[in-house]
Parts: sequence; structure tokens; C-alpha cells
Amino acid sequence: MYRTHTNGELRASHIGQEVTLSGWIQKSRDKGFIIWADLRDRYGITQLVFDEERTPKKMMEQAAHLGREFVVQVKGKVIERESKNSNMATGDIEILVSEVIILNKSLTPPFTIEDETDGGEDLRMKYRYLDIRRNPVRENLIFRHKVSMAVRNYLSAEGFVDVETPYLIKSTPEGARDFVVPSRMNEGQFYALPQSPQTFKQLLMVGGLDKYFQIVKCFRDEDLRADRQPEFTQIDCEMAFIEQEDILNMFEGLTRHLLKEINGVEIGDFPRMQYDDAMAKYGNDKPDIRFGMEFGELNAVAQHKDFGVFNNAELVVGIAVPGGNSYTRKEIDKLIDWVKRPQVGALGMVYSRCNDDGSFKSSVDKFYDQDDLAKWAEVTGAKTGDLICILSGDTNKVRAQLSALRMELAERLGLRNPKEFAPLWVIDFPLLELDEETGHYHAMHHPFTSPKPGQIELLDTNPGDVKANAYDLVLNGNEIGGGSIRIHDKATQAIMLKHLGFSDEEARAQFGFLMDAFEYGAPPHGGLAFGLDRLVSILGGQETIRDFIAFPKNNRGRDVMIDAPAPLDQEQLNELNLQLNLKKND
Amino acid sequence: MYRTHTNGELRASHIGQEVTLSGWIQKSRDKGFIIWADLRDRYGITQLVFDEERTPKKMMEQAAHLGREFVVQVKGKVIERESKNSNMATGDIEILVSEVIILNKSLTPPFTIEDETDGGEDLRMKYRYLDIRRNPVRENLIFRHKVSMAVRNYLSAEGFVDVETPYLIKSTPEGARDFVVPSRMNEGQFYALPQSPQTFKQLLMVGGLDKYFQIVKCFRDEDLRADRQPEFTQIDCEMAFIEQEDILNMFEGLTRHLLKEINGVEIGDFPRMQYDDAMAKYGNDKPDIRFGMEFGELNAVAQHKDFGVFNNAELVVGIAVPGGNSYTRKEIDKLIDWVKRPQVGALGMVYSRCNDDGSFKSSVDKFYDQDDLAKWAEVTGAKTGDLICILSGDTNKVRAQLSALRMELAERLGLRNPKEFAPLWVIDFPLLELDEETGHYHAMHHPFTSPKPGQIELLDTNPGDVKANAYDLVLNGNEIGGGSIRIHDKATQAIMLKHLGFSDEEARAQFGFLMDAFEYGAPPHGGLAFGLDRLVSILGGQETIRDFIAFPKNNRGRDVMIDAPAPLDQEQLNELNLQLNLKKND
Repeated sequence: MYRTHTNGELRASHIGQEVTLSGWIQKSRDKGFIIWADLRDRYGITQLVFDEERTPKKMMEQAAHLGREFVVQVKGKVIERESKNSNMATGDIEILVSEVIILNKSLTPPFTIEDETDGGEDLRMKYRYLDIRRNPVRENLIFRHKVSMAVRNYLSAEGFVDVETPYLIKSTPEGARDFVVPSRMNEGQFYALPQSPQTFKQLLMVGGLDKYFQIVKCFRDEDLRADRQPEFTQIDCEMAFIEQEDILNMFEGLTRHLLKEINGVEIGDFPRMQYDDAMAKYGNDKPDIRFGMEFGELNAVAQHKDFGVFNNAELVVGIAVPGGNSYTRKEIDKLIDWVKRPQVGALGMVYSRCNDDGSFKSSVDKFYDQDDLAKWAEVTGAKTGDLICILSGDTNKVRAQLSALRMELAERLGLRNPKEFAPLWVIDFPLLELDEETGHYHAMHHPFTSPKPGQIELLDTNPGDVKANAYDLVLNGNEIGGGSIRIHDKATQAIMLKHLGFSDEEARAQFGFLMDAFEYGAPPHGGLAFGLDRLVSILGGQETIRDFIAFPKNNRGRDVMIDAPAPLDQEQLNELNLQLNLKKND
Repeated sequence: MYRTHTNGELRASHIGQEVTLSGWIQKSRDKGFIIWADLRDRYGITQLVFDEERTPKKMMEQAAHLGREFVVQVKGKVIERESKNSNMATGDIEILVSEVIILNKSLTPPFTIEDETDGGEDLRMKYRYLDIRRNPVRENLIFRHKVSMAVRNYLSAEGFVDVETPYLIKSTPEGARDFVVPSRMNEGQFYALPQSPQTFKQLLMVGGLDKYFQIVKCFRDEDLRADRQPEFTQIDCEMAFIEQEDILNMFEGLTRHLLKEINGVEIGDFPRMQYDDAMAKYGNDKPDIRFGMEFGELNAVAQHKDFGVFNNAELVVGIAVPGGNSYTRKEIDKLIDWVKRPQVGALGMVYSRCNDDGSFKSSVDKFYDQDDLAKWAEVTGAKTGDLICILSGDTNKVRAQLSALRMELAERLGLRNPKEFAPLWVIDFPLLELDEETGHYHAMHHPFTSPKPGQIELLDTNPGDVKANAYDLVLNGNEIGGGSIRIHDKATQAIMLKHLGFSDEEARAQFGFLMDAFEYGAPPHGGLAFGLDRLVSILGGQETIRDFIAFPKNNRGRDVMIDAPAPLDQEQLNELNLQLNLKKND
């Protein structure tokens, strides 16, 4: 037996007991006549003491040579500590060591195993097993475990059945790129790894399973942006014999439960917002509603004056920045530079100061008088002391730009409090989305999403206007879940696939099994999937998903710790009937 | 809202209530003036009634046309049933229907949706979504869910942390073949899918996580035998600062908990058996100990007579078949044919009848007298009325043959009661196993398994004799789990890899990250993995894992429902820098 207690366990009540502890040497202090060492494990830290008077000389020497991160087992007696440390759970006691066994030595770690480490991101990823020893990383992993358990127990109690769907499935040329897996036994053929278990969960509904969930890995071979992972985890759910309202209520219940269980926060009914309203008020389909700064559309009050920039714009829209009138001219110029950065892309910014005396001072006073500016303040809800920031241009672009500015300013103003939680349903998404590059429409959610009743006829004439039975759950400006009511009849599914550009043959080859299934009594059904990585990071008050993944990949999709991916040897390639066709050799 | 109640819910106490139900038409009986239809969902069946007197004519017509597996929503009143059916939970009531909405029609299903279906295996796999509607399949999936939940909650309460390890990892040329995944972003390189999260769970121990578990998919590209799947599920566990005894106790606790929670069976301490004893007594490292028929080794009492077959054999070994003396000569001849089948491979079988009068009658009476045969009975534990069956030959082969015979006879004698559970630890496995084809030793468990203390020196001289800190959990003749105490220092790991034929370079390339990790304070650790598919099927009283997998693959590794794997299009191959190198085109 390696230990009688953990290093987080001993208290004053244990004084006098003989104990055995194991763990890592966090640090030691050697004063010659007395040596203290901190012994660490997952559960805490316990102070060991060796002193000239009570410790044999040989063991004093041994103690003097215990290096950082050595793994040791010690036996000894729990004694009262002279200088108690009320910051430590075990701070009332220490262990007078009678025996030390070195279980394993350690090289000096490449970075300090402390809450605030001196290791950079790359080094910590390469030695992730050492990074995991640090409290913040370990706590994140345990936090994730708690969220997963809470999700499973909640859904299970609600009658959902956890069903494992297969990972070796079929390539479907929609959405992102698939990762594929060559089959040795089926020459020249490939499996694909699931981008989501979408079709399988629908088939489970056709199979009468009624309520399904799974916490499941999904795979997308996308060019990685910051904070995207090629493999990620979904809480995948589906229900049959339900309407949109049932789904919203069920998963609002789950989210409320998590906020209460995990964060101790009680939230009432979640607000719901139409997609069109979210875009108009926040320029974004996942608005952060922890703070105001709602958009005010100024076309009616800012156009038809002599200011050509506004007159020629499709949309003139502004926000009131609370207390922004305190910004110096230089600060405002910097803000203008910020919106002109390529990542935001605005051509410029008009502003109007709301002075303490009720007057206004704008950057376009040549074109607008005080009455005009008062109307701007009214529309944007600006108060005395605020700064009104206005962008103009094409509706979609200018909304995205102003949304970026709104989020940046909120961040700077400290309005994005990670301990505050503001969930929101965004509903009535468009069914289709125009790809401006190709001019083609593609499914905004996925090809199995049903259009709103009676709107399918619009597909031919006004495809962009068709609304879907689709909904997203937004938390603090992040989409944490999304789903839809599905199509459950073959005819509608065929129309959808046709409008998405599938030939009959392609539709048959890719989704024939699903279309067949719809002919054998498919019930009405729908569902939702949460992004677990994102959900956990937001509940944890952080925004970087990588911090909540045990072994994340970098933004080249590499695991730098194990050095994967890696070349295959020729024999393996031969067995798989493959040869490399590298671009360099073309 | 599609329903106010499920179809398993209504009782006499609901009589008089107006309800809405949804589900599938299981069957209907049309007597002209009255029509009954059974409405089915996941929860049960409720009888619908339409009759001339109370049902409008139009609806009678509608009811007459409800086909099997149509999806309908009905509204109506709960009424008392005239002829109650005590076999159905809802058998006291029926629904007098006032409104029928057909939610979806159904073609006639290719097989009957009944507990005993007329559909063959292939057809049921192709239409798995219909197969899942059948009670036995659905119940198996829900049973699996219950086992998973019980496992997770037990381990979580014991302090284990569920950590998700990556799926896109590195090819390791050991054990079975890997499935690989070409990387588009890292040209010419491949990920591998995990055969198990072995190295990652060890790194989590190095990372101080102490107790880890995960229910996780694993992948092996093996030539599929019956009842093997290319993807399968493991309950994967690892602990640090533990000895073998701690692991055995912990997972004995888990298994005992499952048997109690899931099967209502209380089991005391699990017996433990040395690998060598299991092989000697049962010819098998996963003995079914629900029944006796232990091996009796007869060399001492059967050799050195004039019977050359026995004299020339390395091992002469027999079992007593309870009541086997009742077999006719013809039946015994059939048994001899059975052991001579290529799958078993014996050259013949000697037998001795234990007559009621205490005398013996053997097939080799020419060589052995009654005293000799009495000794055989003593050694095999045969009693009056039994039949002693004896095989002889090379030790390993003859043990396997007699083990097959023992299991076959037990099956025929009804001794393998699926409701009886007999768990067993098999311990002290050999570290290495000789591959008779290549003459090389390979790791019996895996290359990370530690040898018994003090035995590592034997590796050079008697590699086959080295025992490992390795153990299997056996239930009813099936290995349901296995694990080991791991090597946790770099030097020992290097020696092991060398003995397994890895050059320093290969060891470095494949396992360098793990060896590095061992240099930074790796704690003693070990673990175990359960095969969830197998565990669930045995707890469920069945032996076919396919019945407990939602969407299994056939023994060509194909999913016949979605028709995967499938060819990739050229564009995808190009993006992956691959070209096919099919054998046909060579």
C-alpha cells in the first residue's frame, strides 16, 4: 500500500497518527539543521519535516537531495505545526518523517509546476503530462468531468438513452471536409469519421428510440483557426414526437440545471430572440446580452442630409458607448484605427460625443445640427457622458463590423463578466445561406433541417427568405448549442437536396439509406447538439477551449507531445493499397 | 404537443380521461363493425378501438386503412376494456378514438416488427432502424445504457476522473494493425486511430491525475472473426500509487456493484487463480467455473503401459462428464468425430465408462485393467455413471482441445446457465508469449506491462518463464477485463522494448514521448480495461456482442445499412495527396 492518506486529507485531528503518504516533491527549504519539503498529489500538499534532533543523519542527507518532482513515499507521524498556514487545508500539521522511499527520480522539469508557470504554450504542450500536474489544468479537467457527469445524469433521468453510434462511417460531401480511413479489407474504399452522428441519431428516431443522447467525438478536417480542434466533443441529442417548443424547454432545463449544479447560479426562463432581430440589434446571431449597447439604425435620421458617405450606404447604424465621452481625441482616433484593421474592415467611423451640458459634438458637425444629433442619441439610447459610434455601408458587412466594435468595447469596459451568465435562444434561422463566392445557396444548419410550415414553396422564388425550424442556444456571446426540427418525409428531403444542388443520383448515393428509412414510418423528430468543449470553457469562466482538453492539437492539427501525424512505413501503405502522391514530386 | 401520455402509461385509473397518443400501428383487427388497432412506442402498446356505433363513418374508413408501421397521432377517451389482457401493462383499458392524424405512412416492412421476427440477419442489418423497433433489440440498447451509467457513476463516486483522450494519434506497430487517417494539412503523414488509449492513460498518471476512467471507442484493423468488430468499446481505467492488490479490489468492487445493480445478484469475494493453474485445470486462461469437469492429468497413471499413443504424448489429460455413461456407443462416436473436427483438431479420444456397479469399461481395455481405470476415475474425479474423456498429445494443443470439449459438453448438459454468474481473477500471466510461426517472443499483454519483481534478469535466459504483474477478469468463461501494473521507469521500459525486438531508434520514434515522461517523476501505476460490448452481452445473459451494438458491422467490416466503406472521389484523394494502388492494376 503506497499511502494511508492523500496529501489533502490530514488535519489537526490526525495529530499523533502514523501515516504513509506518497506524491511529488513540490519544493523544499533546507536550513541545514531543519529541512521542510512540500509533498504534492492531486488532492493537495502536505508539509514534511526533517530535523537534526529527531531525524537520523542519513535521512537528513537523503532529504537534502530530494529534487523537485521526485516521486517519494514517506512514513511518519502527524505533528502539530509551529507556524500554522491557514491558506492550506493541511496547514495545521506536518509530518515528522521516519522513512523515505524514492519511488522515482525526476529531471528538472522544463517549466515550473506552479499555478503561474514560466512555461510558454509550446513547451507546455510538448510536456503536457507535466502541465497537467499544475492545479489550473488539473482543475479544468476535473471540472469537465463534473459537467459531463451532470449532463449524463440529467438526461438519463429524463429518459434519454445513451447510444454509441459508429465512428467508421461514410464520407458525405457536405459541410466541412471529412477525415477518411482507408479500408484494408475493402480494397480502394474508405470510411469517413463522423462530422456528427446526425444521420444515425435520426435513424434511432425512426427506430423508435424516442430520446437519444451521446457525448461523442466528432471530426472536421478544416483549416484550423485559433481555438478550433480537428476533433471535438459534442453532447448530441435527439427526440421524437416533439415540436420545437418541447426541444427548447428540454434543453433549457438541462442548461439551467448545469448552471445551478456547476456554477450555483439560478436562471429563470431563457429569453428568445428571432434571428432577424439578433442581426438587427447586435449584428450577430450569437449576441452577448450581458450588457446593452444595442444597435440603433440611423438611416431615417442620418440620411438625406449632405453627408454622402451616409447617403450612399445601405445601412447607417450606431451604438452608445457608456461613459465614452471621457475618451480623449487620441483615444477615439485609436478606436477608428481599430475598426479600420483588416480583421474588422470598416472604412471609417463617425462619432458624436454626448456632453454633460446636453449638447453634442460630432465628427460630422458640418452636416448635422444639434437636433439631428439629439435624434441619433435617442435612437441609440445614448445618455449624457456617452459616445455614439456610427458605421455605415452594406448591411451584412456593417453589422459584422459594429458587432466586433461592440464586443471589443464591452471587453475594455469590463462588461463581459465571466461569472455572469446570460443564456438566450436565437430562433427562426434562415434555411439557406448564400455563398457569396459561388452564388449558390447552402444549408445554414444542415440539409436535414425542416423549413417552417408552408414556406417550402418559397424555395423556388425567394430561397433566402425561407425560415427554418432551427435554433441556437447562446451563452455569453458564444453559440453553445444548435439544432433543428428535421425533415421526416422523403419528398421534402428530396426537394431540399435538389435545392442544395444534389443530383438524384448523388442524393441516392449519399443519403439513400436515410431516404429509405423515411418510407418506413419515420416519426416527427428533432434535436440539438451542444459543443462540450465550448460549453465547459464558458461555464468555467474562460474562453479558450484548449485549456479544457486533456491533449489538444495545435493549429496545424499536430499533437506536439506524441509528434503526430507521422509518416507511415511502406509496408503499411502497401497493405492499404495506397501510394503517396506528394505535390513536391509532381 | 404530440402526446399527453406514452403507450405504456395508461391504467384503469385513467378511465374517462381525454388523451392524445402517438406511435406506430403494430397491427389491427378489422371485424367490419369494430376495428381494433395496437399503437406502439418505446414504452409499450395501447389498444385503440373504433366502432360503428360511436365512431363516425369516415373515421371507420380511415381506421380500416391504417397499415402496419404507419405513424399516427390519435385523440380519444380512455375507456374500460371488455376483455382485459393481463399480459399487457395497459391491458385494462383501450382508447375510443375521436381523431386520427396520420403523421407518416409506411411501406410494408421487409420483416415483421415482432419479438420473434421472420427477418434474417442480413436483412435486419440492412434495415437496422426497423430492427431497433423490435423489443429485444431496443431492450438490449437500453440495457447497455444502464450498464454504462452504472459504471460511470460508480467510478466517479470512487474518485475517478473521466478524461477524453484523443482519437487522432500515432501509428504504433505493435499488437493489431492500426486504422490510419491521412492528414491533409501535414502532407504525406497519417494519424492512427487508437487501439486503446494506453499511452495517454499512462501519461495522465505521470500527470498526477491518480484515477482515470473513460468509456471509449477503440479500433483494430484485424481480419474479423465471428463476433469481432473493427470498432469496439472499452471501459478504460488507470490508477497511480497502487499495487496489483488495490486494482483487483477496486474493479472487483465495480463488477460486484454491476452484478447487484443490473442483475440483482450478490457475489462474495472473487476467486483468484494463477494462470498456470487455469491452464492445467481448464486448458484455458478464461475458464468457465460455473461447473466442474476439471482436468485430471493422467501421465503418471496412464503412461508406461503398452499404449503407445499415451506413452508418446507430452500430456495425457481427461475430464469426467457427469452422467456421461448414459451415452450410447453411437453418441460417443459422434463425440469422437466432434473432437476430430479441424476446429478442434484432436487425433482421437480415449474414453472410460464408469458403470453403476463400480466397474469400468474403456476403449483401451486391451492396455489397462480395472485398477488402472479406477485411478483414472480418481484423478478426474469421475463418479459412478460418468464418462471419462481423455485426450493426449502436445501440452498446449491438447489442453486447448480438451477445453473445447469441456465447453461443448457443458453447453449440451445445460451447465452454462446465463443467469448464473461466476467471476474469477486469473493472475500471474506470463510476460511474453512465443509466436510459434516466427519464433519471436511478443508481449502477452502489451509492452508496458511490468515483470514480477526480480524476474527481469530471466529475460535473457528464460524469457518464457518470466511472469508479469498482469491479470484478467473472467466471467462465465469470457475475458471481460484485463490489465497490468505498468513499467514506470525508463531503464526497464528500454529493456522490455529491446527484448521485443525494437531497435533503439524504433523505440525512440514510437515511444520516445512515454520514455521521456518516465524521466520526470512517473509514479507507480497500473490499470485495467473492460470490453464493454462483451461485458454487457454477458450481463444481459447472451454471448453475441452484435446484439448489444446499435449499428454493428458485418464480418467484412462493412456497415451494410449505410453501405460503408465506399470509394472516395478523385478530388478528395488529390487533396489528401494519395493515389490508389489497387492490386488488380499492378
